[in-house]
Amino acid sequence: MMEETPTQNIDKRIQMAVEAFQFLKNTTINERAEFMNAVADQIEVLGVELLEVTHAETSLPLARLIGEKARTTGQWRSYAKAVAAGIYTEARLDLAQPEKQKGDLRKYNVGIGPVVIFGASNFPFAFSTAGGDTASAIGAGCPVIIKAHPAHPKTSQIMADAITTVVKAFGWPEGVFSHITGTSYEIGAYLTQHKDIRAVAFTGSFHGGKALFDIANSRENPIPVFAEMGSINPVFAFQNLLETKAETLAKEYIASLTLGVGQFCTNPGVFISLKGKPLDRFITVLKEETQYVTPVNMLHKGILESFEKNRSSAIEQPDVEIIMSANTATEDSKVSASIIKTNAQTFLNNPVLSEEVFGPFGVVVACETKEELVKIAQELKGQLTITVAATHEDVRNNDTLINILKDKCGRLLFNGMPTGVEVVYAMQHGGPFPATTDSRFTSVGPDAVKRFVRPISFQNWPDEFLPEELKNDNPLQISRMVDGVMNSESLKLQTI
Amino acid sequence: MMEETPTQNIDKRIQMAVEAFQFLKNTTINERAEFMNAVADQIEVLGVELLEVTHAETSLPLARLIGEKARTTGQWRSYAKAVAAGIYTEARLDLAQPEKQKGDLRKYNVGIGPVVIFGASNFPFAFSTAGGDTASAIGAGCPVIIKAHPAHPKTSQIMADAITTVVKAFGWPEGVFSHITGTSYEIGAYLTQHKDIRAVAFTGSFHGGKALFDIANSRENPIPVFAEMGSINPVFAFQNLLETKAETLAKEYIASLTLGVGQFCTNPGVFISLKGKPLDRFITVLKEETQYVTPVNMLHKGILESFEKNRSSAIEQPDVEIIMSANTATEDSKVSASIIKTNAQTFLNNPVLSEEVFGPFGVVVACETKEELVKIAQELKGQLTITVAATHEDVRNNDTLINILKDKCGRLLFNGMPTGVEVVYAMQHGGPFPATTDSRFTSVGPDAVKRFVRPISFQNWPDEFLPEELKNDNPLQISRMVDGVMNSESLKLQTI
Repeated sequence: MMEETPTQNIDKRIQMAVEAFQFLKNTTINERAEFMNAVADQIEVLGVELLEVTHAETSLPLARLIGEKARTTGQWRSYAKAVAAGIYTEARLDLAQPEKQKGDLRKYNVGIGPVVIFGASNFPFAFSTAGGDTASAIGAGCPVIIKAHPAHPKTSQIMADAITTVVKAFGWPEGVFSHITGTSYEIGAYLTQHKDIRAVAFTGSFHGGKALFDIANSRENPIPVFAEMGSINPVFAFQNLLETKAETLAKEYIASLTLGVGQFCTNPGVFISLKGKPLDRFITVLKEETQYVTPVNMLHKGILESFEKNRSSAIEQPDVEIIMSANTATEDSKVSASIIKTNAQTFLNNPVLSEEVFGPFGVVVACETKEELVKIAQELKGQLTITVAATHEDVRNNDTLINILKDKCGRLLFNGMPTGVEVVYAMQHGGPFPATTDSRFTSVGPDAVKRFVRPISFQNWPDEFLPEELKNDNPLQISRMVDGVMNSESLKLQTI
Repeated sequence: MMEETPTQNIDKRIQMAVEAFQFLKNTTINERAEFMNAVADQIEVLGVELLEVTHAETSLPLARLIGEKARTTGQWRSYAKAVAAGIYTEARLDLAQPEKQKGDLRKYNVGIGPVVIFGASNFPFAFSTAGGDTASAIGAGCPVIIKAHPAHPKTSQIMADAITTVVKAFGWPEGVFSHITGTSYEIGAYLTQHKDIRAVAFTGSFHGGKALFDIANSRENPIPVFAEMGSINPVFAFQNLLETKAETLAKEYIASLTLGVGQFCTNPGVFISLKGKPLDRFITVLKEETQYVTPVNMLHKGILESFEKNRSSAIEQPDVEIIMSANTATEDSKVSASIIKTNAQTFLNNPVLSEEVFGPFGVVVACETKEELVKIAQELKGQLTITVAATHEDVRNNDTLINILKDKCGRLLFNGMPTGVEVVYAMQHGGPFPATTDSRFTSVGPDAVKRFVRPISFQNWPDEFLPEELKNDNPLQISRMVDGVMNSESLKLQTI
């Protein structure tokens, strides 16, 4: 069981974060990048002991955990590199023009203030205590208060200790990083309501994310909440492609649907196509392939129970045909894949069928007409990803539909499956509501840092008091926009 | 009187905006920049007739209106230049690495969708129908629905006609720009609630901005509201500066406080300093200078009434000393300046005194100790601007306080006064709540475009279907980040 951090300790930690923010504001991007690389080093030396603890807490296979650990240190390092390059500093200098009576104006991004981060259960390393949210907040110059996920408390503590070790080694104020534990709803609400918190990041259910969003917006001083709340990640499969590649597509789809027991927010939960022989062939292969899926334990009992409940609810809807219904093996809570089939009208009229079932569960929607495909696209809520399974010819034949799909997601795939979220600059992991609360930001890739900064302009300040990022001689040698032109030069100005 | 656009017409215009968005999404940044320059041309040819209409509607002097008109066309042109340069496109390409099984991922910013903009009364050109919000939304690729400000309906109509003329000349869909009129609260709420609206921009009162913010967040699909809700823009004056420059500072302060009859959101409504002889001298000069202020008409009757009400309320507070109380000349509603003085304890304990009085009204706060200055800084709500009136020595002596001030504003001035908001990249016109609803964005300067975009990633798309901004050969010759490195090169890749 997880001990709950008492409220007075939380208050104390937030006060420490407020003080640490004054310190962090005056660190340079290079200093923060060094810190972030040191955290990566520290996580890297955590050996098999960490993996075993996490495996015991999450049931995730060791191979996956090894991969996720590498991904996690990769996040710290790549975000550090981007921070040090000054990409999120966005320095802009408009120099004085005394002849036009224009003053000197210089703007850059600073951290927004103390950030509360809610760890996710499905990525105990990469989206949890030492995950991408923590790395991006610290990169931005914000102290972090982690609300540990109760499904892997020991893992969370090991990661928190790793970060704390680095805080101490750097001689930074303890308040740069705080680890809060507890299972109650109230503790999350308390953190989100606290007047000194300036932003919240969350990965989890719609219910949880939306509750935090509402709390944050009803504060006396509202704050941004970046909640990634899942998605059904539809796959739209078109005729030419399906005619030639039904088998391959079925194998790719089932592999993606069952990867990690379907416990990914980019799990392709819905497959939409015109009815007909190609789709029948797709379904036949799907049925065969599903039989070979090895049942695996889900992350924790709560997720398993939700999966069973939501899966049953979907399967029991009228006008739904079961393609494959794999019951949970009762003795050890292992699950494999379940897939149902329905028609467009049923799908459109029954909202239960377009709700996310977190786990290995798919809905195949067989449309009568192209118009039904368009209608489904129009009615879709916001998604993290949408996949267009198509030939070039299919794309040309369906431009209206594809244009609509662009408004409905953060990432649009041409073939391939959406699971596997690369940690690169071009990644957009965030889509229109309700996929996330703010489609303008990503929670994966170095651009995740953007969530936690805000600009401040300095007007007519003497060079000696400006932050390093804005000084005339550009000591950090970052790329800056000077009078509208990007360069990394030193300015030869008379010091005022 | 202004006619109210009927609800069914609003629905029709929003539907047209939805369709126009599909068109705008496929325009290039160059096409949008051409459109924006054409709007500037069209506004430029509006001659003395416009100025006379606006002068009659707003009481603003012709010289000011000529300046504001130039500022307005300057906004369209400078935002167009920034849009064409691809600054807000933020193209990021991470090319495929087949040996690592990594796909091709390309991200850029698209318009967020139809935007509702509420015109402001105090800038009939620059922050109204054809103002910076409209320019930045169209630059982002978003159709605009203007809710005209009822204080200058004829001006609004002339500006709307100018934009519509350009829409027609370009053969763009009519729904790119819509002009909605009406005075009721319900019409604003109706627009903000409409399911197809994707963002709202507003400049005006806290009451109005916060109401829209709350409506937008309680929608089924919440949307961002960029409300700029005013500010008291404190001036912190320090000892060394005040000892040597009390007279100059008093003249600068009164000039800024009464500029445009104090009807600027950056009006420096509060002046904070240690008590003593230098402050007494400052006040003496202030008193003299205030006498020379010519009474001028305010923008409209509503603003005048609010000013009188809020001014009286502040003056009537206990422990407040009147430095200068200029009553309104009843025959013609002209106002000059009013200034009161109080001590730090009264200012801290009486929230009425730190509320914005929109108009030429100032509060001088005389502190007993430096600790009181710090306390006031700590208790300050978010501000658009804060001015530090100081010598270099003063800055060195007050670094804790100045560090706090950085958290409380969007723009920090070293001497000089905050009125006069330059339209440049380095401008930040937006501060922590309640100055604005979102401190991460500016509503002045080309960066205002950022408010209305969101990123979308394309994974493994064939070159022919990618937007121009992301195609291999970089036909728009914009600067893009390719595998983490900025360049404007064409990529020599085998087309997939």
